[in-house]
Amino acid sequence: MTDIGIIAVGGYNEMGRNMTAIRVGEDIIILDMGLRLDRVQIHEDVEINKMHSLELIEMGAIPDDTIMKEINGTVRAIVCTHGHLDHIGAIPKLAHRYAAPIISTPYTTSLIKQQIESEVKFGVKNKIVTLNAGGIYQVTEDISIEFIRAQHSIIDCVFAVIHTPDGAILYACDYKLDRMPTMGEQPDFDRLKSLGEEGVLAMITESTNSGVPGKTPSERIAHDLVRDVLLGTEESDVGMIVTTFASHIARINSIIKFAAEMGRTPVLIGRAMDNYVLTAKKLGYIELPDNIEVYGARKDVDKALKKIVNKGKDKYLPIVTGHQGEPGAILPRIANGETPYTIESGDKVIFSANVIPSPMTEGNRYSLETKLKMRGARLFTDVHVSGHACKEDHWELLRIINPEHVIPAHGTINMHSSYIEMAEDAGYVLGNTLHLLRNGEELYIEE
Amino acid sequence: MTDIGIIAVGGYNEMGRNMTAIRVGEDIIILDMGLRLDRVQIHEDVEINKMHSLELIEMGAIPDDTIMKEINGTVRAIVCTHGHLDHIGAIPKLAHRYAAPIISTPYTTSLIKQQIESEVKFGVKNKIVTLNAGGIYQVTEDISIEFIRAQHSIIDCVFAVIHTPDGAILYACDYKLDRMPTMGEQPDFDRLKSLGEEGVLAMITESTNSGVPGKTPSERIAHDLVRDVLLGTEESDVGMIVTTFASHIARINSIIKFAAEMGRTPVLIGRAMDNYVLTAKKLGYIELPDNIEVYGARKDVDKALKKIVNKGKDKYLPIVTGHQGEPGAILPRIANGETPYTIESGDKVIFSANVIPSPMTEGNRYSLETKLKMRGARLFTDVHVSGHACKEDHWELLRIINPEHVIPAHGTINMHSSYIEMAEDAGYVLGNTLHLLRNGEELYIEE
Amino acid sequence: MTDIGIIAVGGYNEMGRNMTAIRVGEDIIILDMGLRLDRVQIHEDVEINKMHSLELIEMGAIPDDTIMKEINGTVRAIVCTHGHLDHIGAIPKLAHRYAAPIISTPYTTSLIKQQIESEVKFGVKNKIVTLNAGGIYQVTEDISIEFIRAQHSIIDCVFAVIHTPDGAILYACDYKLDRMPTMGEQPDFDRLKSLGEEGVLAMITESTNSGVPGKTPSERIAHDLVRDVLLGTEESDVGMIVTTFASHIARINSIIKFAAEMGRTPVLIGRAMDNYVLTAKKLGYIELPDNIEVYGARKDVDKALKKIVNKGKDKYLPIVTGHQGEPGAILPRIANGETPYTIESGDKVIFSANVIPSPMTEGNRYSLETKLKMRGARLFTDVHVSGHACKEDHWELLRIINPEHVIPAHGTINMHSSYIEMAEDAGYVLGNTLHLLRNGEELYIEE
Amino acid sequence: MTDIGIIAVGGYNEMGRNMTAIRVGEDIIILDMGLRLDRVQIHEDVEINKMHSLELIEMGAIPDDTIMKEINGTVRAIVCTHGHLDHIGAIPKLAHRYAAPIISTPYTTSLIKQQIESEVKFGVKNKIVTLNAGGIYQVTEDISIEFIRAQHSIIDCVFAVIHTPDGAILYACDYKLDRMPTMGEQPDFDRLKSLGEEGVLAMITESTNSGVPGKTPSERIAHDLVRDVLLGTEESDVGMIVTTFASHIARINSIIKFAAEMGRTPVLIGRAMDNYVLTAKKLGYIELPDNIEVYGARKDVDKALKKIVNKGKDKYLPIVTGHQGEPGAILPRIANGETPYTIESGDKVIFSANVIPSPMTEGNRYSLETKLKMRGARLFTDVHVSGHACKEDHWELLRIINPEHVIPAHGTINMHSSYIEMAEDAGYVLGNTLHLLRNGEELYIEE
Repeated sequence: MTDIGIIAVGGYNEMGRNMTAIRVGEDIIILDMGLRLDRVQIHEDVEINKMHSLELIEMGAIPDDTIMKEINGTVRAIVCTHGHLDHIGAIPKLAHRYAAPIISTPYTTSLIKQQIESEVKFGVKNKIVTLNAGGIYQVTEDISIEFIRAQHSIIDCVFAVIHTPDGAILYACDYKLDRMPTMGEQPDFDRLKSLGEEGVLAMITESTNSGVPGKTPSERIAHDLVRDVLLGTEESDVGMIVTTFASHIARINSIIKFAAEMGRTPVLIGRAMDNYVLTAKKLGYIELPDNIEVYGARKDVDKALKKIVNKGKDKYLPIVTGHQGEPGAILPRIANGETPYTIESGDKVIFSANVIPSPMTEGNRYSLETKLKMRGARLFTDVHVSGHACKEDHWELLRIINPEHVIPAHGTINMHSSYIEMAEDAGYVLGNTLHLLRNGEELYIEE
Repeated sequence: MTDIGIIAVGGYNEMGRNMTAIRVGEDIIILDMGLRLDRVQIHEDVEINKMHSLELIEMGAIPDDTIMKEINGTVRAIVCTHGHLDHIGAIPKLAHRYAAPIISTPYTTSLIKQQIESEVKFGVKNKIVTLNAGGIYQVTEDISIEFIRAQHSIIDCVFAVIHTPDGAILYACDYKLDRMPTMGEQPDFDRLKSLGEEGVLAMITESTNSGVPGKTPSERIAHDLVRDVLLGTEESDVGMIVTTFASHIARINSIIKFAAEMGRTPVLIGRAMDNYVLTAKKLGYIELPDNIEVYGARKDVDKALKKIVNKGKDKYLPIVTGHQGEPGAILPRIANGETPYTIESGDKVIFSANVIPSPMTEGNRYSLETKLKMRGARLFTDVHVSGHACKEDHWELLRIINPEHVIPAHGTINMHSSYIEMAEDAGYVLGNTLHLLRNGEELYIEE
Repeated sequence: MTDIGIIAVGGYNEMGRNMTAIRVGEDIIILDMGLRLDRVQIHEDVEINKMHSLELIEMGAIPDDTIMKEINGTVRAIVCTHGHLDHIGAIPKLAHRYAAPIISTPYTTSLIKQQIESEVKFGVKNKIVTLNAGGIYQVTEDISIEFIRAQHSIIDCVFAVIHTPDGAILYACDYKLDRMPTMGEQPDFDRLKSLGEEGVLAMITESTNSGVPGKTPSERIAHDLVRDVLLGTEESDVGMIVTTFASHIARINSIIKFAAEMGRTPVLIGRAMDNYVLTAKKLGYIELPDNIEVYGARKDVDKALKKIVNKGKDKYLPIVTGHQGEPGAILPRIANGETPYTIESGDKVIFSANVIPSPMTEGNRYSLETKLKMRGARLFTDVHVSGHACKEDHWELLRIINPEHVIPAHGTINMHSSYIEMAEDAGYVLGNTLHLLRNGEELYIEE
Repeated sequence: MTDIGIIAVGGYNEMGRNMTAIRVGEDIIILDMGLRLDRVQIHEDVEINKMHSLELIEMGAIPDDTIMKEINGTVRAIVCTHGHLDHIGAIPKLAHRYAAPIISTPYTTSLIKQQIESEVKFGVKNKIVTLNAGGIYQVTEDISIEFIRAQHSIIDCVFAVIHTPDGAILYACDYKLDRMPTMGEQPDFDRLKSLGEEGVLAMITESTNSGVPGKTPSERIAHDLVRDVLLGTEESDVGMIVTTFASHIARINSIIKFAAEMGRTPVLIGRAMDNYVLTAKKLGYIELPDNIEVYGARKDVDKALKKIVNKGKDKYLPIVTGHQGEPGAILPRIANGETPYTIESGDKVIFSANVIPSPMTEGNRYSLETKLKMRGARLFTDVHVSGHACKEDHWELLRIINPEHVIPAHGTINMHSSYIEMAEDAGYVLGNTLHLLRNGEELYIEE
């Protein structure tokens, strides 16, 4: 039989900069090429799009793929399972080193193209292949890639299966088992079950929330929580601003609909809002109401905010960037008093987002929240549910797939430890059928 | 004009043992007489129902009402706003000292009667008056009590208004502003608004969750979370046990309905389940399906658990006591292997309850969860939402009522501090219109 | 008798920007005028020394002394108890509004003068009076100021007593009851006791650490901890850098002595190091060894670091600024690779400082520590003890002084709450002999 | 060459029940046989000394040594490195299964003998061998055991070296690199260095505190902290009680000496105090002053406490058991009012111990502290330093020994993860020279 290697390139010692390579004999499939924003944030005045990959590798910001030189094989495909930066953000820096197509779902593909276009240092010329959830792409005579519908905090997210002569390998990063999604359908449980029945050689899966007890609440819960904050109040005539992830199209779709219920005009503000939402619209993932307004460019933004103030803050529902307190984003600019939109006592600011657990972000958020409160804003924080599977979701997927080998990825060693303890409950044995990999290591799967 | 005094008897320095007295000239209205379970728990082998009130006062378990001797006036009524023990649990120990009726809503009244009946040491002979939400009771020529519909984690909870010649005093302990309750109607916002317009002299309100940002999620959210855990799984044929607050009738009602959806027979197990739920049924608050089974007495419980195991754990949905790991309750007994129901690998145990934040309880819960996990149970913890208003709910109520004076109650000094900071945002001034009381202190309201 | 008012100007709702005014009839004594750095940090590109006081008041960065206009009286003296910025940092912005001398101990006086000199916007011309610990200054015929020796994390810190015709008022912010100080003598317990016996009308005291159980360890403990890290190692030939508070002269003195024991040359690096230590030397508080090197100016610093690298990192013990990760300070610059001193694997970096508990600072520290670790540094964090009294120190001072009234200051409402609970244990009664003040409030002490 | 196996029997998935077996060809050396108290505590009314080993294994309370049957070899020696229960507590339950001597230092040997004597269920007849630190014991022709002096929170603690034909294996559980111990000498750095120079095949080392930054403070620091609490107070005439680990002879020795400085009679109270301290005295590790009093039996204790109260609490310094709030121990009995010693307002209770981080213990401590505070006690908690090496101590030992292989033990997977990250900094590679073992797993070391 062919020998199989699983190479942990990035995202095994940390959150972010995910990259895994699967070697099937001398053919290699790369899964994800992500960026670690946390490592960029600790430096001031970094312009990523002008930096060299080696410099970014040294910073720990992108996967150290220099180890690929020592792997005996040729890269045949680069597969990205969804469009978050920790999965696609290193493509502009690394993909050109490999003569291989980049394969992803339609929405992810569009985002990858934008990444490549905004790159200044390198020219990425790889072939771009679009594959829908449910589709199969033949990479070599022996190897094919199958996409299975998943759910996550971005649309068009998939599980990827690498079918090899020695069996299937499931790459399940990132996902949630949402049975009541507000956009798209629930994960394709039928296919996951049949895959499990066919037999799976190995599963590589995110360990991110595997230490969090229970199961991740459905996006429906976030939908209802946001709606209750917006509509369930006796003080409905004040200024209200919502901030959320610009890439979270399902959430934004909900908020836009609430604006209609509230009798307010939804206004998307911020370059990323413009970008992610209009891309989703172009591809037909979201329908926007006629009265929606969208402002990406700085000068348009300020003009729009001035109009809102003039016509009445209670006529509009601005949906803005800046939930992590990112300097320069819309909400921090409003909090600084740098825009025509002034926060008054009693105005509501709704954070439909968690705080990303990094001290830099916590500092930015503290600064943002402090300024908003000093201006009299009422804050609604963490009106949100996670997009990552929790412990019992992992338990369930593991038992559906029932792989011979399981490898936690996409997390710190502590997150992997939580996954390991759960998998041991399910009968897996560390060092035998359950594997703890570190960045740079290759696991040989021998039968 | 008459002079008004607000006397902080208990629950101003701590959570639990709530008791407030309002003196209107020489007439006194007592609000709540609660128990602090935390102070009982730190002792072994305490049998409260046999203990003398002075002993319990010394332990800090019930309000120190000996200070009432120094208040110049006569108690005319004892009012309880809902049936939780921290509001009614000291009635058997203290009420007989006052020649005054005990006034409460129907469900609360039933629970108070049970308290009185189970008391061994004292005989409480006070007149018991039932007053519905929306009703008014004339206490003296000058003073009347009005009940306004509220929502909380127990049914039939009310806000109490004490109408005096000098103005109305609102007692708002405990409540949540739930606009999508699963049982009963939302709080009576119309009456709260008209009350605010009429003018309110003082509001005494719980500070418990006033430091928690945002608003408390609706009970509807808990309903959906529990449903998703029970029904949204590929492993639907395993043993499943739910544990929740026996007094949380709305939650139990939801779970009973999910049992039908699951094709399982709901089985209420534990003395408190029997007690609270059947009382609610008798009063018409809840309809139980024909197939429900209810077991309170120890010997019935074990027989029932044996039957469940024999007929198939997947045919039943036991709803049991013991979510805090209370020694002797059903779930801890199951975890100890003291019952015929054995936990097997993959069985699900759903805690539709928070962990009460006391180290004693945390120790009990740890013990319980450890034993369950060692037997292979999959745990779903904190599938729950709070019954207490959060910061922005407090903001909203404060602005609807717009009282001249506001007094946080029902919490520690840190909880009151959070309320104070919020009330200052709304324009209140500490020591002037906003008051921090300590147990044993009387606030004189002079105009 | 004269009436006394205690006005909470700043530092009663927060840590930082301390300012209290004591009104004795129509004479007013101001205690401290501090800066809240936290409120400066949340803004980018703020140059305090060019800003107007009203702007800084609006930012919450300095005390809002505009309320002083409503106090009926004339300021007769401004007293600063030690030289930390949260006690003297607002002097350049506020002191010129009062025709009153600024009274402080010699070291504090020097620091105040430097503050005034670096101010760009305002010209502070107040008379500067130096008063030694143990000394008395007659302010008016009736009022005098007495300084009593204290201990804190800066030298020359005192308790201030305001002697009035109605009794003495003790201002005890900040202090620790250090019985084994490494510099200076222990607090003047004899005088504190005699003061208590004479009778004290009121004590205003910091609540900062009143919630921390037990007593604050002596500075001797920090001395021993730092020494053990520096000398108690088998890897004594690597690069070692210590960072600590530039104003903590006692700590720096210890470290300088350890350098001699280690056979290394101590090198003070950073503008603040230069400033605070040389000022202490000039006033005779510290003796520096002949071989010490001190570099404040940017160009000197880099030259010095180059020399250290050239001659051997193991020959020197750099004592540098930047323990909080402050951008632009020496240690962050080293971590960024902006200086000739490169960190190599195994080099030791000793943080003889806590992390100031603010999310902004925590973000900066995270960034600093991450960069140092990526370069291979071994980190020793929190090799430090606090300069603030803990709960049992407060208990002890309160019982020595036995004041009629006690007012916690210098903290958030939660810190005051901890103090209140402790003082209640000692028999004080909130609202009667124990007072919770908010910024802007005047407490009238009537007998 | 011979093949070597390292078998993780217990203490690799948890804190407690430590047991490692080293197989050298077909000869096996067992290191430690410990008890996990945490797993005993979660059950009520457990009498360990009457229980069968299989029952205790199922509870997770002692190592599951049934796996030893599958190891091809014969146990030649059982080595215990110190006398804590998590290292010797399973000897009465497991040692008799092996025809092998038990080897330990004199103090450890005495404690092991006591364990064996108190056992009811099993009769342990193994030969007991006493080996001093610095000594060598020849186990077989090829294998010898060497003890190297260490420091820990109990006296007579050693590192154990297993010398085999294939190289030395160092077992370093538990230790601290204390260079200023208050009893005994510092660890034998010379021998550790020479051992490292000779070459070490593998090191098995505790990971317990490897995630705690910096180095563990010396016992000297705890000595000074306790002294300052006892002697550094203006309220020296009140009742004072110290509670600490009965096995921490060095700490108790310090406290006894402080009693003399205070002019008080030291009184050791509690069965464990009696036991551990008198054993230490018998063996010559500690000298007790003539005036010391020691009471172990219940009736003597109460008589002694009565005498103390009668003669004056300020004449005595009771040193008692119960620092973790263990029901039935002396301090909890005092707090319950079950002894003649009554706590009065202002009495000091000094906890010269940490809180063992288990929710059960935290519950007990909360209960204890609450009762003490209600009686007016002033509490000094955590007047203590750890006996476990911190991250930089681990760094230092790892580099002194420089083993070919390193295996973290004595902790949870999260603690091992911290060790792994540190060891990676030092150049070790997981799965190659650095190994994560789980209970029940054998690591084969092949050259």
